[in-house]
Amino acid sequence: MTILSRRRLLTGGAVAGLGAVAGAGAVAAGAEPATLPGAGTADVGTATVAFHGPRQAGVAEDPPAHAAFAAFTLAPGTDRAALARMLRLLTDDAARLTQGVPALGDTDAPLAALPARLTVTAGFGPGLYAAAGLPSPVADLPAFTIDRLEKRWSGGDLLLQICADDPLTVAHTQRMLIKDARPFAAVRWVQQGFRRSPGVQASDHTQRNVLGQLDGTANPRGSLIDTAVWNPDGSTTLVVRRIRAEIEKWDILSVTDKENAVGRRMMSGAPLSGAAEHDEPDFTTLDASGLPAMPDFAHVTRAHVTDPALKILRRPYNYDAAPDAAGNPDAGLIFASYQRDIARQYVPIQQRLADKDLLNEWITPIGSAVFAVPPGCAPGGWIGEQLLS
Amino acid sequence: MTILSRRRLLTGGAVAGLGAVAGAGAVAAGAEPATLPGAGTADVGTATVAFHGPRQAGVAEDPPAHAAFAAFTLAPGTDRAALARMLRLLTDDAARLTQGVPALGDTDAPLAALPARLTVTAGFGPGLYAAAGLPSPVADLPAFTIDRLEKRWSGGDLLLQICADDPLTVAHTQRMLIKDARPFAAVRWVQQGFRRSPGVQASDHTQRNVLGQLDGTANPRGSLIDTAVWNPDGSTTLVVRRIRAEIEKWDILSVTDKENAVGRRMMSGAPLSGAAEHDEPDFTTLDASGLPAMPDFAHVTRAHVTDPALKILRRPYNYDAAPDAAGNPDAGLIFASYQRDIARQYVPIQQRLADKDLLNEWITPIGSAVFAVPPGCAPGGWIGEQLLS
Repeated sequence: MTILSRRRLLTGGAVAGLGAVAGAGAVAAGAEPATLPGAGTADVGTATVAFHGPRQAGVAEDPPAHAAFAAFTLAPGTDRAALARMLRLLTDDAARLTQGVPALGDTDAPLAALPARLTVTAGFGPGLYAAAGLPSPVADLPAFTIDRLEKRWSGGDLLLQICADDPLTVAHTQRMLIKDARPFAAVRWVQQGFRRSPGVQASDHTQRNVLGQLDGTANPRGSLIDTAVWNPDGSTTLVVRRIRAEIEKWDILSVTDKENAVGRRMMSGAPLSGAAEHDEPDFTTLDASGLPAMPDFAHVTRAHVTDPALKILRRPYNYDAAPDAAGNPDAGLIFASYQRDIARQYVPIQQRLADKDLLNEWITPIGSAVFAVPPGCAPGGWIGEQLLS
Repeated sequence: MTILSRRRLLTGGAVAGLGAVAGAGAVAAGAEPATLPGAGTADVGTATVAFHGPRQAGVAEDPPAHAAFAAFTLAPGTDRAALARMLRLLTDDAARLTQGVPALGDTDAPLAALPARLTVTAGFGPGLYAAAGLPSPVADLPAFTIDRLEKRWSGGDLLLQICADDPLTVAHTQRMLIKDARPFAAVRWVQQGFRRSPGVQASDHTQRNVLGQLDGTANPRGSLIDTAVWNPDGSTTLVVRRIRAEIEKWDILSVTDKENAVGRRMMSGAPLSGAAEHDEPDFTTLDASGLPAMPDFAHVTRAHVTDPALKILRRPYNYDAAPDAAGNPDAGLIFASYQRDIARQYVPIQQRLADKDLLNEWITPIGSAVFAVPPGCAPGGWIGEQLLS
């Protein structure tokens, strides 16, 4: 009740009854864009993403439907030479599996046959650089007041981000990579997430998350991804945050209150200052009562970045674990963001959100990890070779 | 090692090194049938399955890619009148959501818009009949020596089986149904599972499970489903078993040993007595050494049923939870089987498997539940009305 009162005070919105929400919903049902019939998704299983190249795959492509983020803790005494052996092995596995070819030691080879746009992306945490006796280009994030971080979802010396349009492919790839990493590293955490299944929506359509929000509208696109994400050497950085959605609280808000918290229309994703999803938010627009159409404390207002070089590339996945006995969900976002420089791009946005973001009432960061994502490699090469060889 | 020796003794197979396995794998990679390009899967999001009818949906259709099995424990004092109220509510939710229409109290209406072949199937456990003061048509399974059942995956007064080709649709439907069940019942367990994504393989292709086996070859098809599954009143029964795959042990078997344990070729799914997946196993065929081509203790030999009226309809989903720190997977099958009569059809098969099945070395039942699946209903009706009104 305190929360609702505070929200009402801040936004002027009233908490509507279920009837009003359902009314909005009934309009919604017909309005959600689906893939047009005939738009081919029929090569879902055999589609591949090239593994080799100056930049790692799994960053700039449209995110496939399923992901596993597997973080590892290096075994004590793992040195630079051991890291090189591990990464040669994992690179070889990834180079094969992403092309639909079993890993050399594959014990369930038939499961390798349908890669479904499989990508494997390796990230190096601060601990990997320490083990190699090298300075780390990434550092743990500063503490934010909103954080309620749990160790079981945080940190990691090595990350393998495994994405594919098929969940069995992800499961098999995860299994093979974990087996080959085993001599060098223990599993620290694995977070499995999902987006819409292939063919459910067109790839250029922003997807909804478990809170029903269109998620990723402000992402850089096309050549602006280069500006925001890629360093000249082909490297980038990754922040992985596990963000629990307080869905029970979110559910009792009216659509108007949800829209004021986010700064966008729930249905269309349009900023409250505009009419269409990709309209640029205009913070000077006033509403009928003479107040800014984009509330000062709305998520979009606080997160907004104008300079293309300071944007981040969000690549989020939903998670939905089993609810408790009372039916409270354990769901939320595996928020993954790519950017050239975490301190320069990600941290200022997160700091503004931590300071003042209405949405903080309904989301709680419970995990956090940072990784440098080294350049890709050519055939015969391996991820990390510039650093470790 | 004991296991391997025993296996070698039983099957005459040798445990091959990784090289041999990888060799078989390389052959595999090109052989896995994918959906043919152009085979339309582009209406994945908007596709619907009719909710109303004399039989519940979610049984005889090709299983969609994602499922949540949610089991509930009725609140103390839930009587027949309360059960009727609960089932009216849940039926109304299901009738709307399966057609892409938000539930009446839907708090995230946009998430209802893409049903993706959503089905909601209700099952009644023995405890529901007891609460209603009625005799139960289903009883808990007898104890099997292979069982290592955990309470957290077993039993249940009410089951909602939620299946769709999209995981976000499943998550939203699960959320809405659990919220509306809340006044009447606590969540006992939720098991989430997956099959291949839409478009990855043709719907008539038997899918592989997490052990790499083609799973469901012997299922009744077409009109034989009527014989095996449906009672004249439109009812059926459901067994849900959570079967952990001992993948670490399975991995160290050679392909030959795996095939002897299952009784089928890993790659083609053909019985060891035949050449193609759907060849009927012939238990009189001898191999080159004069022994039965189908080993006496192989899974297929033990599970084989000739009489179409005694077959069961398997509708399994894979699960893959997070591995432990040492990288041991927590993966397996949510084995769901439909049949007219559990005691007459399911139990004899399971008893034969429990008595002697080589595959028992690599699978462990850790959950078990039985449900009567009442007939479907007409528009305006509700699931369970024949029983509870």
